[in-house]
Order: sequence, then structure tokens, then C-alpha cells
Amino acid sequence: MAPVVDAGAEASGRLDVLLAGYGTVGQAVHRALEEHRGELTARGVDARVTAIARRERTAIDADGIAYPEANGLAWEPGELMDAIWEAEADVLVEATPTDLVDGQPALGHVRTALHNDMGVVLANKGPLAHAYHELEDRAREAGVPLRFEATVGACIPAVNAARHAFAGDRVQRVEGILNGTTNFVLTRMSEEGSELEQALRETQALGYAEADPSADLEGLDAAAKIVILANALLDRELTLEDVDVEGIRDLPRNAVELAGQHGKRLKLVAEADREGTVRVGPSMVPKGDPLDVPGALNAVRFTTELAGSRTHTGAGAGGGPTAAAIVSDLVEVARELGER
Amino acid sequence: MAPVVDAGAEASGRLDVLLAGYGTVGQAVHRALEEHRGELTARGVDARVTAIARRERTAIDADGIAYPEANGLAWEPGELMDAIWEAEADVLVEATPTDLVDGQPALGHVRTALHNDMGVVLANKGPLAHAYHELEDRAREAGVPLRFEATVGACIPAVNAARHAFAGDRVQRVEGILNGTTNFVLTRMSEEGSELEQALRETQALGYAEADPSADLEGLDAAAKIVILANALLDRELTLEDVDVEGIRDLPRNAVELAGQHGKRLKLVAEADREGTVRVGPSMVPKGDPLDVPGALNAVRFTTELAGSRTHTGAGAGGGPTAAAIVSDLVEVARELGER
Repeated sequence: MAPVVDAGAEASGRLDVLLAGYGTVGQAVHRALEEHRGELTARGVDARVTAIARRERTAIDADGIAYPEANGLAWEPGELMDAIWEAEADVLVEATPTDLVDGQPALGHVRTALHNDMGVVLANKGPLAHAYHELEDRAREAGVPLRFEATVGACIPAVNAARHAFAGDRVQRVEGILNGTTNFVLTRMSEEGSELEQALRETQALGYAEADPSADLEGLDAAAKIVILANALLDRELTLEDVDVEGIRDLPRNAVELAGQHGKRLKLVAEADREGTVRVGPSMVPKGDPLDVPGALNAVRFTTELAGSRTHTGAGAGGGPTAAAIVSDLVEVARELGER
Repeated sequence: MAPVVDAGAEASGRLDVLLAGYGTVGQAVHRALEEHRGELTARGVDARVTAIARRERTAIDADGIAYPEANGLAWEPGELMDAIWEAEADVLVEATPTDLVDGQPALGHVRTALHNDMGVVLANKGPLAHAYHELEDRAREAGVPLRFEATVGACIPAVNAARHAFAGDRVQRVEGILNGTTNFVLTRMSEEGSELEQALRETQALGYAEADPSADLEGLDAAAKIVILANALLDRELTLEDVDVEGIRDLPRNAVELAGQHGKRLKLVAEADREGTVRVGPSMVPKGDPLDVPGALNAVRFTTELAGSRTHTGAGAGGGPTAAAIVSDLVEVARELGER
């Protein structure tokens, strides 16, 4: 057994998981918990999915629900919120569709879970974009963990880096390419010389943009993520309304081309510091800069007092990368709950 | 107080630190522990340097030794090894100069510390390049932590990422630009069209290469680092002798230029997987690839089963970045020792 895994084997005991939402991410988490049982056991974590809830359908089994390879699940009619009250799980994984307007209904799910002394792991950034500190306070009062690595850059170490890699250091500034869709569109525009609308259609055809890409193009998705990072890493107390947001819908004509002529690339950059800056907008990034990532990749640069700057890059979305972040959060949740 | 820091406040109690080596890194650690006392206290860590040992001189004070801004330390004649036996510290920070030939005298320091049930944090990769598993076994038997984030890529999350960000996942492959000196030399050759010897002199003049850069140019420094990563992340059981190493001294004429003509860059790449590969050698990296980092930067790409690939980049050397990694290790050491 690898020594590093050995040393991390502090987590302990059974962890009953309630999956709220069972789309790409929920299913990927379910599958990962089953297929990576060995890695989890090596850390002392016996995680099983004991309840799954999606709109108007639930599946509950206190003995654990196997990942359905073919035949599907034995759904019963039922409300997601009722499942949170009734399932007696140790932790809620919130992976329902994100609503950035008010964070609902996920915000209600998280409040209810914390009220019932359940830990919470979020894939959904809506609740944190609107009520970060309220939820942190509720979790602290309940004495349960609230984790959300998956909400920013999927598997890219971002939120939790502050707990571990930056321990004892002080983060001063965070910048990032936090939205894969706009990065893909801007990359196409740069490489093909195409206009926004055409690049967007191609991006949708390739599956990198949703049918309604407004939240991406208008910068709201990136804004929600920088709110989360600023609250978690920079001692800020922000909601989505506080962010100075400019999207890429109204780029000046030839802006992408002009950037290229000056050895730069136009990117949708999100940034925040401790002095009051929190913004999202189109920005010129020098070619070859760590933030100059192509396609749908995300990147986050952290500037800290001791270490200077570091950049983490990777896929910012997708079932596997998001599930990986959620599973790593669940390992920490198991450890924290085991220590109580 | 930031919630994320709050949640990490599991560490506890006083941690008496013995600094072995007091060059750039040792002094940077000393200074960081003093200037970042607030961040450490927020995590419940009261770390103080109670002993400093360098060749034939020691300074010991059980009440803690303040970082000397001007007047220097009250050195006494004394042997480093004696200080390890006598200082009664909780943890040894090994930051003496690295010797890749046999890992000594640092290997002896680490063995002695573990024999005395002291935790160990390494900045020096020599001992791990030669005796990784022996030292892990000794640490496990003594029930004390052995940490070494600083040995690979300084502050870039590498070794410890396996404990946290990749928890529950499985690393399949690691590749990296792990030596800043050779990367700087190759970047100069690429950008200036210069030959190796000239680029090396410029790199030395700028302070990015040592007077004797053999270990860098011959690939041994990168080899030691890939040994550490392969042992820690890929369940391998390797020493430096197992690595297939080729440096950049004998590059074919115009190799750098030819790479550029094909849209690539020549880099000294280290790589390892679970199937038997462990090698260091010149390799063509596509321009714009996450591993295509300029200057003295380092980069590590991790490919895991669930998440796919992620890349971490940053300064791979220097007092601040190295001290940041050591301080984050000390926070974890304090927590582990507090849990005993």
C-alpha cells in the first residue's frame, strides 16, 4: 500500500450518502463510490449511497443502492425535500441543476440538510453564490462539514487548496479562467477568425455549450465562482450581486483579432483580492501565460504571501472531474464526522 | 475569520522545530514561522524554532529562537547530529544541502530523528531518492509523520495532492518539468537561438543555475523528484538507480530549433506510471500544452482515473516557495502529532 495513502487513513467509518440530483454528476458520483471502493477503504471510508432524489422521484435503501449498470433504479414517487427529512443520511451531495438567479431550490435543500445535522457537499454553486456565509454559519452551528471543491473548476484544486497546500500562508489574490464555455468560444474565435455567433454555434454543436448559454456568455457563471473563491480564500463577504460583471456578448468588433496581433489572447478573466476587487470581464492575457489555457480548460492562479504564484489547470466541468472533487470532499467529510 | 481556515483549525498545540541547515531555505522557514504566526495560530498551531543546526554550529533555546533581523544568532560550536539527539524537538526540518550521490549526511539526520520519535519534514530530496521506503517504514514504526512536499516543485501541490485533492481517486501517470535550471536554459536556447554553453552561462549569470550545474544538466535532479512522486503517488518502489535518465548535455545539434519548426518545444520531461515507466529525458512538448512552461517554472501533470488530467505550475525553487511548502507540511505534522 502506498505510504501516502497510508498516512491519510485517518478517516473512519460508514458514510451514508444522499444524492440530490441524478444527472451526469450524480450518476458519476454514484459510480465512482462503487468503482473506487478500494481507494476509499484504504482511507477508512465506507461510503454508500442510501438515498437518491430527483424531481418527484426517490430511491431509498438503508443497505445501500448499487450503481445500476443497465436496469435502472427502483424509483418511487416522492419529493426531493421529503427525502432529505426522511433519509437519515450522513451527508447530502447537492447535484441538482444550478439556478444562479436565487440559488433555489438547492438553497432550501442545503438549509434543510444542515438543520438535520447532515454534512453537505455541493456541486451546485447557486446556494453559495447567494448565501455563502449564512450556510457556513449554519454548518458551524450544527457542527457538520460543508464542502464545495466541485463548484469551482471541478477537479482543479481550488477551494480546498486553502485548507492544505496554502496552510500557514495567506492568499492575497485569485485570478482565473473559470468558465469553459466562453473559453472554448474565445479559443475558436482566435483560431478560426470567426465571429461570436458562429463560434457559439460550433461550441454548442461540440457539446461545450448549453442550449441557453446566457449565464456563461454574460459572465454570471464565472462571477458565482469568483464569489465562492473570494469568500473561501480572501476573507471576503460577497454575494453574486457584489461582482462587477462584464460578459463577452458585446465585445468590440475584432477585439479577439487585435489581441492576437499584440501577442495576447482575449480571455474572460475572473479576479478578486483582499482590497475590494471582485470582477469578471474580458481581459488580455499574454500568450504563454499560465492563464492562457486553450479550449474548455479552466485555470486558477493563486498569489500568496510566502509562495508567490501558482496556477492549477484542468477540465472545469464534466461528470468524471466533478465526481473526483466530490469524492475527495466526501473523504474529508467522513474524517470530520468520525472525529466528532 | 475565513470559514475555510476555521474548518481547518483541527491542528493543536505546540510544535518545537529543529532546523537542520540554515541557508536560504532554513532562514525562510524561520522567518515564515514568525511572520505567519497569526495564520498558524488560526489553525491551532503554535510552532517555534527551538534549535538550529548547521555544520559545526548550533543554537538551542527551548523557549524559542527569534528570527534575527540584523544581529544574527548566538551560535555555539556543536555538531548537527548531536543537536538532533539533544534538542528534544517535535519535528526535524531537513534543509541541509542536497547530495544526490548517497543522500548523506541528510539521510543520517532523518534516521536519527525518526529513531528519536521526531516527525520529519524534508526540503532535501537526497534521503528520499535513495531510501524512500526505508524511511516511510521507520516513520510508520515510530508513529510519527514524514512529509516532503517541498522536495518536488517547491510550493506546487504535488506530493500532498495525493492525500487531499486526489483522495478516493487513483493516480495513473505523472509527468513534469521538474528542474528549473534546465527549463531556463532550454527556454533561452529556444528564444535566443543560442547554444547550450552560452545559454548556461547566461542562466548562471542570472542566478538560475549553480556553479556546478551537473546534477541539473544530467537530469539527476529531475530523476530524484520523479522517484519521489512515483513512490508516493504510484505505489512504485524506486530509488534513483532505477530511473532511465538522459540529460540535455548531448542534445543533437539544432534540436531546439527543429522542435520550434514543428510547433513544439524541447523540454526535459520526467515521467512515471504504474506499468514500469520511470524516465527523464529531452522530449517534444506541443506549444501551448500545460507542460509548456517558460523560464525557471516547474509543472506537474497528474492523470487520474476519475478526473483525467490536471496540471499544477509555479516556481520550483527559492526560499519563499520552498518555505511555504514546509510550513504547510508543519501544519499537518502538528495535527497528526496532536491526534496521537
